[in-house]
Amino acid sequence: MTDTGHFLNQMRATAPLVHNITNYVAMNIMANVLLAAGASPAMVHALPEVEEFAGLAQALSVNIGTLDPDWATAMEHAAQVMVAAQKPWVLDPVGVGATRFRQQVCTRLLALRPAVIRGNASEIIALASLGAGSGGATGKGADSADPVEAAEAAARQLAASCGAVVAVSGPVDYITDGVDAWRVANGHPLMPRITALGCALNGVIAAFLVGQPALPATVAALAYYGLAGERAAQAAQAPGGFQAAFLDALYTLTPQDLSAGAKVARA
Amino acid sequence: MTDTGHFLNQMRATAPLVHNITNYVAMNIMANVLLAAGASPAMVHALPEVEEFAGLAQALSVNIGTLDPDWATAMEHAAQVMVAAQKPWVLDPVGVGATRFRQQVCTRLLALRPAVIRGNASEIIALASLGAGSGGATGKGADSADPVEAAEAAARQLAASCGAVVAVSGPVDYITDGVDAWRVANGHPLMPRITALGCALNGVIAAFLVGQPALPATVAALAYYGLAGERAAQAAQAPGGFQAAFLDALYTLTPQDLSAGAKVARA
Amino acid sequence: MTDTGHFLNQMRATAPLVHNITNYVAMNIMANVLLAAGASPAMVHALPEVEEFAGLAQALSVNIGTLDPDWATAMEHAAQVMVAAQKPWVLDPVGVGATRFRQQVCTRLLALRPAVIRGNASEIIALASLGAGSGGATGKGADSADPVEAAEAAARQLAASCGAVVAVSGPVDYITDGVDAWRVANGHPLMPRITALGCALNGVIAAFLVGQPALPATVAALAYYGLAGERAAQAAQAPGGFQAAFLDALYTLTPQDLSAGAKVARA
Repeated sequence: MTDTGHFLNQMRATAPLVHNITNYVAMNIMANVLLAAGASPAMVHALPEVEEFAGLAQALSVNIGTLDPDWATAMEHAAQVMVAAQKPWVLDPVGVGATRFRQQVCTRLLALRPAVIRGNASEIIALASLGAGSGGATGKGADSADPVEAAEAAARQLAASCGAVVAVSGPVDYITDGVDAWRVANGHPLMPRITALGCALNGVIAAFLVGQPALPATVAALAYYGLAGERAAQAAQAPGGFQAAFLDALYTLTPQDLSAGAKVARA
Repeated sequence: MTDTGHFLNQMRATAPLVHNITNYVAMNIMANVLLAAGASPAMVHALPEVEEFAGLAQALSVNIGTLDPDWATAMEHAAQVMVAAQKPWVLDPVGVGATRFRQQVCTRLLALRPAVIRGNASEIIALASLGAGSGGATGKGADSADPVEAAEAAARQLAASCGAVVAVSGPVDYITDGVDAWRVANGHPLMPRITALGCALNGVIAAFLVGQPALPATVAALAYYGLAGERAAQAAQAPGGFQAAFLDALYTLTPQDLSAGAKVARA
Repeated sequence: MTDTGHFLNQMRATAPLVHNITNYVAMNIMANVLLAAGASPAMVHALPEVEEFAGLAQALSVNIGTLDPDWATAMEHAAQVMVAAQKPWVLDPVGVGATRFRQQVCTRLLALRPAVIRGNASEIIALASLGAGSGGATGKGADSADPVEAAEAAARQLAASCGAVVAVSGPVDYITDGVDAWRVANGHPLMPRITALGCALNGVIAAFLVGQPALPATVAALAYYGLAGERAAQAAQAPGGFQAAFLDALYTLTPQDLSAGAKVARA
C-alpha cells in the first residue's frame, strides 16, 4: 500500500476541520489528540446548528458513547450532510451490544453509509449481527470481551453490506473493505487503560480520510496511533504518565518515523 | 476489621462493571481512576437505556454534580434497578446545600436506599438536615466549609435513618453505619486541588462494594485512595503533575502496599 | 496601571466562587485551572437551579462552545442574576462566526452587559459585526483565522457599544474598554495546542474581576495566564507534558513572579 508516512504528512498539511459528535468522557482527550496530531477539532451537537456546522467541516466522527435521543438525531443530520457533500464520516459504535437503544440508533446510522466503522471486536460482532436479528457479542461496556480474530468474518460481512471500511481494534488491528484486508501490529497494552483513547482514534481516522482513499488512510491512522502508544510506553509505564506521553508522541512523531515504525501487513 | 489489602485484591479479581451517572466535570477522570484501579467503568444516562444498562452492571455510582431534571430521573430509574436486584449503589450529594433543586432530588434518591453515601462535611450535614427541614451546612459549591468533626453526628443520624454506610471525606475521613465507626487518615492536601477526585472516589467505592460488606469495603476504598494520594505527593508537588502521579499510584499500588500503608482505626 | 501581582494576590485572598456555564470539552480543565490558580469553581446549568446558584457565586463565566438551546436560556438567566446584583460576568463567544444559532445567542447575551468579552480575533470580529448584519471574520471553529491586529478596531467598537472590556487573545493580546487599550505579550505557542485553555482563561478572568476594576484586572489575568504558559514551556516541549506543567505553573507562580514577569504595555 501507499507509504503510511505520506498520509500523516498529507493530514498535517491539510490540518482538516474535524466535526465530532462524541461522548462526554471522550470530548476533552479527543480534542487534545486531534490538536496534537495536527488537525483542528470542533464539538457541535445542537439541532439548530449541527447541519450548518457539518457543512463547514471536512470530516465527521460520530461516537455513541453517552448516547441520548436528541444526540442520535443530531448524528443522523450531520451524517446526511456529509454524505450529500461526499465528505467522509466515521462511526464508533461504543457498547452497541449492551442495549436495544444503541442497536436501534446504529441501525439508522449504518443506513447513512459511514466511510469507516471502527470498534473493538465485541462491537463489530454486535454491529454485523444487527441485520441478522441476533446478537453474538459478549461485550457489555466499552471493553471488548472477544478477541480480534473472532470478529474478522463479521468485519468483512459488515464492510460488504455497508460499503464501509471496517476496523477492529485490538492487540493486532484488522482492517478490511470487504475484499482487501490488512493487519496493524502497532500499539501497547496500556492504551486500553486510558479512557476514550479508542474514541479519540476515530477522530484521527476522520482527519486522515480527507482527500484520501479510505482503506490505506485508515491503516495509516491506526499505525500512527499505535506507534505513538509504543513511544509513550518508552517514557511512562503507568496510565497517568502514559496519557501525557502519548499526546507528546502524537505531536512529535514525524512522517519518517511512521514509515520506519509502522507494522503493517496484508492479512 | 478485615485486612484492607484483601478488598483491593478482590476488586481487581472481579474487575466489576461500574455504571456511573455522574457530572460532566468528573466523567473523564472518573473513568481513568476506575481503569487505573482495575475496574471497568461505563457512563450511561439516557432514559431509553439506563435501566437496561443498570441490569448489566455490578454496581452503580450516582453523582449530582451537574444535575439536570432528566438526569435526576435517570438516576432514580437506575437506582431502582440496583436495589431490586440487590446490587449496591453509591450516592455523591455534590453541593446539596446550595439549591432547593438539589435537596429535592436528594430527598428522592435517599428513599431508594443507597448502600453508601460519601460527601464532604458540608454535604453530609446538609443531607442529614433534609428531613429536619432546616439546613445547617455552610458549603456553597463542591468545596466544604465545615470540618469533618462537625459532621460526625449528622453522619451517624443519616446512616441510621437511611440504612446506609455514610463516609465524610476530609483530612481524616469518618465512616459509619450508624453503629460502628472508623477513621481513615490516609490522603494528601493536594487531592482537593484536583477537580473531581472526590467524585471519582465514589466510583472506586462502588467497585469495592461488589460482593463485600459495605462498611469495611468502604473503609478499604478510602484507605486505598488516600494512600495513592500520599504516593503521588512523593512524585509531584503541584496539581498538574500530581494528577498523573495519582493515576499511576492507583495502578501500581498492590494489596500488600495497602495493608502496610492503610491508616485505619476504629473511631 | 496597578501592579499585576496585586490582582493575583487579591484573587487568591478572596478565593472567589466562580460559576461557570461552559462547554463539555472545557469543563474539567477549566475547573482544574481555577483550582490551581486559587479560586473555587462550580459548574451549574440546569434551569431549576441556575439562578439560585448564580445568587451564591461572586462571578460568572459563560462559554458557548458546545451550545444547546436550553443551555443558552440558562446562560441568560444566570447573567441576569449577576447584572441585577452588580456582580461581574464574562463572555467567551466560541466559534460565533460559524453558525446563525451562535450569532442569535450572542446577540441576546450581549444585551445583558458582560463585564468582559474575551475571544480570538475571528470571534471578536464576528461579534462586532453582529449589529452590522454582515460577518467579516473567517474563523470556522475554535481556532482563529485572523491576526490580533485585524481585530483591534472591532474590539474598540464592541467595547464602546457594549460597555464591556474586550480582550483579543493571540501571540500578543489586545485589551480595551473602548478608550484605553493595553497589550500583553506573555504566552507560548503551545498554548493553543491544548484544547480549552482559552475557555479556561475566561474563568480566571472572572475570578480576577471580583471587587476589582475590569480593565486592569483583565490585563493582570492575561499576563498571569501567559506567564504560566512561559513557565510550562521551560518544563515541557510537547502538549501532554505541557498541560500538566501549565497547571503546576498556575499553582506555583507568586504575585512577585507575576509583577516581575508581566509583559504589559499601553497600546
